[in-house]
Amino acid sequence: MASKFVPDYGLPASNRRVLLVRRPRGIPQAEDFALDEAPVEPLAEGRFLVRNLFLSVDPAQRGWACDDRNYSEPVPLGGVMRALAVGVIVESRHAGHKAGSFVYGWFGWQDFCVAGPEQLITQTETLLAPLSAYAGVLGINGLTAWLAFHRIGRPEPGDRVLVSTAAGAVGSIVGQLARESGCHVVGLTGDEEKRRRCVDRFGYHDAANYKQGNLAETVERLAPEGVDIFFDNVGGETLDVVIRAMRVGGRIVQCGTASIAAWTPPPMGLRNEREILTRRLCWGGFVIFDHAARFETASAELVRLIDAGRLVHAEDIMQGIESAPAAIGRLYAGENRGKNLIYIG
Amino acid sequence: MASKFVPDYGLPASNRRVLLVRRPRGIPQAEDFALDEAPVEPLAEGRFLVRNLFLSVDPAQRGWACDDRNYSEPVPLGGVMRALAVGVIVESRHAGHKAGSFVYGWFGWQDFCVAGPEQLITQTETLLAPLSAYAGVLGINGLTAWLAFHRIGRPEPGDRVLVSTAAGAVGSIVGQLARESGCHVVGLTGDEEKRRRCVDRFGYHDAANYKQGNLAETVERLAPEGVDIFFDNVGGETLDVVIRAMRVGGRIVQCGTASIAAWTPPPMGLRNEREILTRRLCWGGFVIFDHAARFETASAELVRLIDAGRLVHAEDIMQGIESAPAAIGRLYAGENRGKNLIYIG
Repeated sequence: MASKFVPDYGLPASNRRVLLVRRPRGIPQAEDFALDEAPVEPLAEGRFLVRNLFLSVDPAQRGWACDDRNYSEPVPLGGVMRALAVGVIVESRHAGHKAGSFVYGWFGWQDFCVAGPEQLITQTETLLAPLSAYAGVLGINGLTAWLAFHRIGRPEPGDRVLVSTAAGAVGSIVGQLARESGCHVVGLTGDEEKRRRCVDRFGYHDAANYKQGNLAETVERLAPEGVDIFFDNVGGETLDVVIRAMRVGGRIVQCGTASIAAWTPPPMGLRNEREILTRRLCWGGFVIFDHAARFETASAELVRLIDAGRLVHAEDIMQGIESAPAAIGRLYAGENRGKNLIYIG
Repeated sequence: MASKFVPDYGLPASNRRVLLVRRPRGIPQAEDFALDEAPVEPLAEGRFLVRNLFLSVDPAQRGWACDDRNYSEPVPLGGVMRALAVGVIVESRHAGHKAGSFVYGWFGWQDFCVAGPEQLITQTETLLAPLSAYAGVLGINGLTAWLAFHRIGRPEPGDRVLVSTAAGAVGSIVGQLARESGCHVVGLTGDEEKRRRCVDRFGYHDAANYKQGNLAETVERLAPEGVDIFFDNVGGETLDVVIRAMRVGGRIVQCGTASIAAWTPPPMGLRNEREILTRRLCWGGFVIFDHAARFETASAELVRLIDAGRLVHAEDIMQGIESAPAAIGRLYAGENRGKNLIYIG
């Protein structure tokens, strides 16, 4: 039984899938993937069949596709590309996960996924926000923003916050959460349109295009009093510059390293240990999957802010599974405008 | 009135002082200092006169002597070299700091210091350990070891701990505290004699001379299961190697950067932000003076361990204020055997 909110898809004849067919060097490109079509596997006892509706495109997919050392096993060559997705259960052989439930989890870049409870991040029978939001502001982007900012950033009112990729799926939420926490928040982003959206929509007191002019001067202008919390999604030169603008006792949230195209061999940069020491920084790495026990708390906070009209989110929704292979490259090129999803309903 | 524990020095005719006369490049050398003799300044109301007995020699003095950006103002050229010292109050015009009290604080490399309460770290009327201990295991070395290890390292039983400069004034205490906390602790040190003392005296389960063989292989041999807490006093290549041996959720305590001779211009090294992220590390800088509110707690813990015979400390005591100018260079050359003090009583 399908939910009243979505069409009845019935049982699938076949399943379109995006396979990883070549190990990417650096940023995954369209040629690293192939689209195929295969029968849906039989539904074993204890499993359920998910009809994906929104496929998620995430910077972290770069790491999953490469076989560099990472926090998870690389996607095997010839396998369905690992991805988060939002969908609806269309058939179930598990009592706790009934047909009609909306689900968010590890369903891969494909039309259908035979899944088990271990692949779920969220399940709901009642939508508290548009379905797509469950893959963005209420999915790992929002959860990452909330948990990384609060648990590693440890904001206090009056703190000076700087966010890199300030208009991105995570950054755009961090800006608003920082403002909610009584911080002064500024952002670095990659073009003038994004810069304006940071200030006009995402709560930033100020923002700058990091590509214009000298980066150290830009940071000095944005944060003349220094930075208490650096929420960093890019690493590299930006990190080296901002570390040298940190205030004593500051926190660096390392949430991504998007500016570095390849980690093998490890690139060189400025030595930062003296800055860590003399500024008494606390530099922490954040991977969302360590924090599953707090998803519910964070999610409730995000819903509360959305309901109060105090948290907006931007989505960039592409159409059709054919958009998937090129999507990660597009993301790293900074072409997306908000959380990048692919609608395949 | 002098204490019954120390000779009555009477009032001084003059004061021998070690002045900083040249801004060091890198490690301060004997030629950067000059010894002079000057009258003791008059004792104003609210101040007291300290007769220094043990002058402390500390790696941090390098930073105080240079004019690189640091956590404190550089020592002015021509001024008495900033240093910690242990002494006794021989005359006082402050009711709370009576003659006969033993004091530890910022009295500089000189025989006598007219001091105020703001220069004190510890004062005691009753010695709970030999006087020299107040400048070492009960001074900033012991306090640093205890507070940095517990507050940034956050040890749990079973944690794998690695300490650089393992036999040094701080490291030798960290080794023992780690063992007390139920951790498995290994050390890196600079010669065979120190290596043996780590294992025989300072609680280490194992230790290695980092100068022998390939460092990555040495770390792999010492910590085949990886490292949960890296207590680092050196930075540089050692840091780059150990970061890549850290376990998920590990903590790096940046307590010193002794391996880097100069920070201007900033040296280059491996980029470490991807390691911070994927291993979810927490890398914290420690400067003891932020933690004054906890000195008493830490000190009581250290005294308890010493009394129970569970914390030994090594001292390397030189004689005469003439030893001071070359002492920092000697320390960075790794020639000291334990906490380096200069007895000038």
